Amino acid sequence: MSIDTTIQILGKGAIRSPLPLDTEPGNLIGTFTDDATRVRYNVEVDGHEDRPELLFEKAGPRETIYYDPAETKVAIMTCGGVCPGLNNVIRSAYRELSNYGVREVLGIRYGHQGLNPAVGLEPLRLTDELVNTIHQHGGTLLGSSRGSQPLPVMVDTLKKWGVQVLLTVGGDGTQRGARDIGAEARKQGYPLSVVGVPKTIDNDIQFVRRTFGFTTAADKAREVLTCAHVEARAYPNGVVIVRLMGRDSGFIAAAAALASQEANFVLVPEVPFKLEGENGLFNALKRRLERKDHAVIAVAEGAGQDLLAALPRQTDASGNVLHHDIGLHLRDQIAAHFKEQKIGISLKYIDPSYIIRSVPANSEDAVLCDQFARHAVHAAMAGKTDLVIGFWNEFIHVPIALATAQRRKIEPDSLLWSSVLSATGQPAQME
Amino acid sequence: MSIDTTIQILGKGAIRSPLPLDTEPGNLIGTFTDDATRVRYNVEVDGHEDRPELLFEKAGPRETIYYDPAETKVAIMTCGGVCPGLNNVIRSAYRELSNYGVREVLGIRYGHQGLNPAVGLEPLRLTDELVNTIHQHGGTLLGSSRGSQPLPVMVDTLKKWGVQVLLTVGGDGTQRGARDIGAEARKQGYPLSVVGVPKTIDNDIQFVRRTFGFTTAADKAREVLTCAHVEARAYPNGVVIVRLMGRDSGFIAAAAALASQEANFVLVPEVPFKLEGENGLFNALKRRLERKDHAVIAVAEGAGQDLLAALPRQTDASGNVLHHDIGLHLRDQIAAHFKEQKIGISLKYIDPSYIIRSVPANSEDAVLCDQFARHAVHAAMAGKTDLVIGFWNEFIHVPIALATAQRRKIEPDSLLWSSVLSATGQPAQME
Amino acid sequence: MSIDTTIQILGKGAIRSPLPLDTEPGNLIGTFTDDATRVRYNVEVDGHEDRPELLFEKAGPRETIYYDPAETKVAIMTCGGVCPGLNNVIRSAYRELSNYGVREVLGIRYGHQGLNPAVGLEPLRLTDELVNTIHQHGGTLLGSSRGSQPLPVMVDTLKKWGVQVLLTVGGDGTQRGARDIGAEARKQGYPLSVVGVPKTIDNDIQFVRRTFGFTTAADKAREVLTCAHVEARAYPNGVVIVRLMGRDSGFIAAAAALASQEANFVLVPEVPFKLEGENGLFNALKRRLERKDHAVIAVAEGAGQDLLAALPRQTDASGNVLHHDIGLHLRDQIAAHFKEQKIGISLKYIDPSYIIRSVPANSEDAVLCDQFARHAVHAAMAGKTDLVIGFWNEFIHVPIALATAQRRKIEPDSLLWSSVLSATGQPAQME
Amino acid sequence: MSIDTTIQILGKGAIRSPLPLDTEPGNLIGTFTDDATRVRYNVEVDGHEDRPELLFEKAGPRETIYYDPAETKVAIMTCGGVCPGLNNVIRSAYRELSNYGVREVLGIRYGHQGLNPAVGLEPLRLTDELVNTIHQHGGTLLGSSRGSQPLPVMVDTLKKWGVQVLLTVGGDGTQRGARDIGAEARKQGYPLSVVGVPKTIDNDIQFVRRTFGFTTAADKAREVLTCAHVEARAYPNGVVIVRLMGRDSGFIAAAAALASQEANFVLVPEVPFKLEGENGLFNALKRRLERKDHAVIAVAEGAGQDLLAALPRQTDASGNVLHHDIGLHLRDQIAAHFKEQKIGISLKYIDPSYIIRSVPANSEDAVLCDQFARHAVHAAMAGKTDLVIGFWNEFIHVPIALATAQRRKIEPDSLLWSSVLSATGQPAQME
Repeated sequence: MSIDTTIQILGKGAIRSPLPLDTEPGNLIGTFTDDATRVRYNVEVDGHEDRPELLFEKAGPRETIYYDPAETKVAIMTCGGVCPGLNNVIRSAYRELSNYGVREVLGIRYGHQGLNPAVGLEPLRLTDELVNTIHQHGGTLLGSSRGSQPLPVMVDTLKKWGVQVLLTVGGDGTQRGARDIGAEARKQGYPLSVVGVPKTIDNDIQFVRRTFGFTTAADKAREVLTCAHVEARAYPNGVVIVRLMGRDSGFIAAAAALASQEANFVLVPEVPFKLEGENGLFNALKRRLERKDHAVIAVAEGAGQDLLAALPRQTDASGNVLHHDIGLHLRDQIAAHFKEQKIGISLKYIDPSYIIRSVPANSEDAVLCDQFARHAVHAAMAGKTDLVIGFWNEFIHVPIALATAQRRKIEPDSLLWSSVLSATGQPAQME
Repeated sequence: MSIDTTIQILGKGAIRSPLPLDTEPGNLIGTFTDDATRVRYNVEVDGHEDRPELLFEKAGPRETIYYDPAETKVAIMTCGGVCPGLNNVIRSAYRELSNYGVREVLGIRYGHQGLNPAVGLEPLRLTDELVNTIHQHGGTLLGSSRGSQPLPVMVDTLKKWGVQVLLTVGGDGTQRGARDIGAEARKQGYPLSVVGVPKTIDNDIQFVRRTFGFTTAADKAREVLTCAHVEARAYPNGVVIVRLMGRDSGFIAAAAALASQEANFVLVPEVPFKLEGENGLFNALKRRLERKDHAVIAVAEGAGQDLLAALPRQTDASGNVLHHDIGLHLRDQIAAHFKEQKIGISLKYIDPSYIIRSVPANSEDAVLCDQFARHAVHAAMAGKTDLVIGFWNEFIHVPIALATAQRRKIEPDSLLWSSVLSATGQPAQME
Repeated sequence: MSIDTTIQILGKGAIRSPLPLDTEPGNLIGTFTDDATRVRYNVEVDGHEDRPELLFEKAGPRETIYYDPAETKVAIMTCGGVCPGLNNVIRSAYRELSNYGVREVLGIRYGHQGLNPAVGLEPLRLTDELVNTIHQHGGTLLGSSRGSQPLPVMVDTLKKWGVQVLLTVGGDGTQRGARDIGAEARKQGYPLSVVGVPKTIDNDIQFVRRTFGFTTAADKAREVLTCAHVEARAYPNGVVIVRLMGRDSGFIAAAAALASQEANFVLVPEVPFKLEGENGLFNALKRRLERKDHAVIAVAEGAGQDLLAALPRQTDASGNVLHHDIGLHLRDQIAAHFKEQKIGISLKYIDPSYIIRSVPANSEDAVLCDQFARHAVHAAMAGKTDLVIGFWNEFIHVPIALATAQRRKIEPDSLLWSSVLSATGQPAQME
Repeated sequence: MSIDTTIQILGKGAIRSPLPLDTEPGNLIGTFTDDATRVRYNVEVDGHEDRPELLFEKAGPRETIYYDPAETKVAIMTCGGVCPGLNNVIRSAYRELSNYGVREVLGIRYGHQGLNPAVGLEPLRLTDELVNTIHQHGGTLLGSSRGSQPLPVMVDTLKKWGVQVLLTVGGDGTQRGARDIGAEARKQGYPLSVVGVPKTIDNDIQFVRRTFGFTTAADKAREVLTCAHVEARAYPNGVVIVRLMGRDSGFIAAAAALASQEANFVLVPEVPFKLEGENGLFNALKRRLERKDHAVIAVAEGAGQDLLAALPRQTDASGNVLHHDIGLHLRDQIAAHFKEQKIGISLKYIDPSYIIRSVPANSEDAVLCDQFARHAVHAAMAGKTDLVIGFWNEFIHVPIALATAQRRKIEPDSLLWSSVLSATGQPAQME
């Protein structure tokens, strides 16, 4: 196996960092991070030491930087879904750029749309005043959007504005798009540093053990599970389905279930299940109701996609394909099944996604955002590009290609999942 | 106009209340409430003093009571939808009954179902231990259910158990049902006091200015409006629809909008609106988006029922009529309209009902629950029946027939609604 | 008894209100309030109808107003302690003034200090932008201060700025000060309308059943009592004293205790108690510990002042008198007493005042603030002066002299206090 | 340097674990942890690879265990200060023991006191019912206490009860005490496994990157800083001092300051400061007030101990030494200094410790507690002893002696502290 963790640079830096740091550890003065320091991905010594070691560049401020802060124009962009902490990242990136002495920081409006003149959006010029209290609020000062715009158009805009550093806050697609922007710019002979802060409320990016927004989301999801539990217990055979975020990975559902200890079934993309059959969900749910009279089901949006794949294709009036939703599917199937079985249940359905993702970051996430943002600035000022800030044992630099190659997932044979099984009491296998 | 506010009694009380109160105001010892005291409904002197005056019995502990506490068995029942404060009411009623010396308090399980032996539910015998911390949690210790059970069966059960006082916590239907239970019992020569604590999260019961659970619900609804505002602002032409409770009255939507100042349209049952036309919602929304790029719409579930009435009748596979939902209808209509108009919007829909109603009572509601519950016990111990505890200037006794005759509603020409218009900026008329 | 509730006016209004209201009740258009309508203070009919009736002017927008909005300059000022909702009041007053068409609204900085040029504070010119989100935050945009400044200086400043209406948000002292400012101005032939929004987190102003900020404070105080309960139960003979606000009236302590049901002793200014003696607090606490092993004591800051009066006078190094604090006194006395009695206790002390009063208003208070503020604007625009907005059955106009004549207090023989006794289990008399 | 990370065992296990796990990674069945797997402490590759490597045993369920669950009696004990998550640890430990089939789990009351028969406390026999909802509440079901009891007495009690495994949840002192109990028991020929879950709200235990309760505490501390900021801004030259937990390490103050971005000075034990002098706090504060009119100071309880050491020794009436408190000292010194300088300030002091530590765990901490507790059970069932569960890159076993040898501290030249300096704007050196 050969995994390339080499970070691209625009050029060798030659400028002494203006940050008030030194290279002496152990004093009261902060320390530059040596560019040669590497961080081990694997921390276990277990007799498999013959496997190749995965080492990442350690993130942090470099003593020698590439950009002259006084001459550097930086742009920040937030893309994709709302996530707790976006404003914290914007604010801390701006503050750290100010520490370097960068004077112009542009906030691009509504993600990629803000880079297409045809859309007609002027960038925000960020100021102390403008960012001062934004971290207290959910959402993003800059706005966001999904989808992309034509590459050459976006690069033209960045060139026109004189932007040398592009900081992107977004998920897989955004980071890949950022890499393409950087590549296109370089192709045009315009050196542009592209550095990403990985954003995924699902916590499913490779080489990032904890993405910002996740613990806030888990906390809100826990509150919803508590509400669901109250509702379920309030009625005879009360069943409440809570649909949670998690397209590819069930971390939010797992964490919320562990924290609340009030879900009885947690359905995640990583663990397949069937509805029918002796071991299927219907039977497991029936047994649960016989024992306890109520049940709470937390289902990640990406769970059970094989069940949906088997459904007939539906289109709307215009012929657009309608995507099936596992939450609604479960609701309808459970309702139909118990009706057919002539077992009265009181079934409710809760989809709290927009309520979960739009709140301000909790303290844990706020601190994490601050660190991600400052590390992104350090990497960019050092002339590095095509990377996202990762967090695995320590903050690291991860090539975009590597970070977006696949998703991080719950390992069904991990202790995390064992704990979920213990907390819910659900069968390990429902197939 | 003649409105009868006379409260029925099972018989003249002859027992000295065991409560440590006296009849002297102004000392450190609590005071019994004189049975003859009346509370004015109308407090305005405005030149219309020729209209008949509406006077209610003042609620409170009576010096002479009807039931001998040592011999009295009381049952408590919660019915209908979950509402913040149910457990507080149960707990305070139990505690006040203990103050009187009542030794047996039964908690009926799952509303009316618990009175039908065919369902097979044993009542809970309430104890200090059992109720000690229930007020810290949402929902109801006893469980609830909708719908009723055969009258004679329920009365038989109460007789079998020896219950002399039935305290019900529920809405219109529950209170009317309770009155029927009381009437049936008396018909059978079994004197049963039936006293209700009005429960409506919508705050729409006549002669009750503030029902318990309402301010908690408004507080949670406000949180959701804030989330909606964050989502709406995060995307170009972001529109978020929040469906709130309020079948007949829009008090929750109005209060949440006033508190948050972040809704741009509040649609309530009391104020009709159209979608199409120069003054219709579509146009008003379009103008709002042109001006501000985003919009939050709070819609009470009972708003715009005339729009739904005009829709084609739909049935499911089994031929059951499917009820239209104004929230989903708005969502679909707005999506279709703007698509047709080729105006790109980012439309989201939030239905937070179960998350709002299942939380514990806030302090305001907790205190209110305590007072409602204790007044209900005082009324019942005094041998009064067929009443609910009202709250209009003071706590009062309201005959069930009167309390359930019609719903309390927002007056569109009130200052409350004017303030909503000022807070939202929506047109006063969208017809 | 003769209580004068007559409201002063600067002159008869002659201008048609620009508000979009009419005088027809029952339509979809809001209604002006008739200046002749009065609101009864007493709502009980109890055989004491010979007592003189107390009637207040009903608050609300008048059809005819005194000030020409286009020519009117209004100043707003917040004084005294921080209280949840101050920003809501500022914002809603500004918004309602905008509804009238008033173009200049000055925010005076730091209370009375902002009216003394010697302090050198420029007023804020309020704008939509400036007030847009302030209601989401605790504190006051304008700042506040205690104490006053020379009357003639303040009046001079208002005259210099051309202010015709002064809206003050503050307690007794502030309102009396405002009246003096108004009187001084009139003496100088400068007609100035002075209208107050009563601010007292203690909820102790006469003719105001509910002051803004109170329910938020009670809610936070409840949280603290829950923490105290956790601490008390965690240690053998755990005793936790929580000092709550309430200089003259114990409403916060009472409400928080009722809501939490977790305080075992509530000590308020209205109910005297002794420490020593058979019935004293020491003995009651000892019995409680013998029975339950832990105790939570909520003490209002104004409780037990007779105990403090008996203490030796203390001065600091400069000879300034040091005020005794009932909370600290209780803490020290209980510690000493149980030490002397050789009974081990684990004693803790919590003073959460600044944490309680600095949070944003909850929904209930937010709505209340909105209404108080708008009514204050209506009264001022109608040329009324020397009044505060009251709230007794309905919103009313109360002459400042009357509102500040004495404090509203808990009546120890009320059902509120009886409920507190039932919730705490404390002896009715500890003297 | 030689650091011994060897974990003691009572004996070689010979019993097949009853947990439904296997040794095959990558399937849907959870995986036993190989007893030989080690976890690296140091993850950096930085040219200092000649230093000895620190390796810890990886925590997790072992395939072969030492104790026969059916015959094993386990006791759990919580000691020292209240901390968010104690109940979660108790509950998850109980649940994991149930997974193993352990039938008797005793909850020792009030820490060490519960092991001294002279105190007269019966242990609680834990049941599903008893622990079911405890994780929703702060504090500890079992109670706690400080200080210890005679070793032989405690060992006698454990022997008498037949306890073979003692799980302790507590700080340094508790863990050292537990080790002594284990040693004493073995000396008496009674094999007792002693396994600790490290508890320190300050997050200052070596080889534990994150202790449970810390993020909850930081979240609450942040709320308090926000309140302090509101208070500070509300008055001219408003200064608010917030005393936070952190006897040896300032992690809570640092995290809360980073999260809130609203503290202007963070004083921690790791960074010395002076009050007087050109660079001292007084001057820095004066400059801040000149610039911004208000200031928030967060001070960890262990900060500035050198300043206190210089103070005259004070004793109370009984001659007991009174410990100086840095928070109160700062308050008094700042008040005196600015009075002397004739600069008016509005100074307030907040000590929220008991409010911070007594709340329920947030989701992040709840999950952490669950994992710590389950790992402690796994270690104990495997016959390991004299260890605490650590968490450094992964969950690990740390000998008690090593874990308690010294405290973990903020490194003043770390990026964490640099970020605090950037967030506060305080001088890097105030000496």
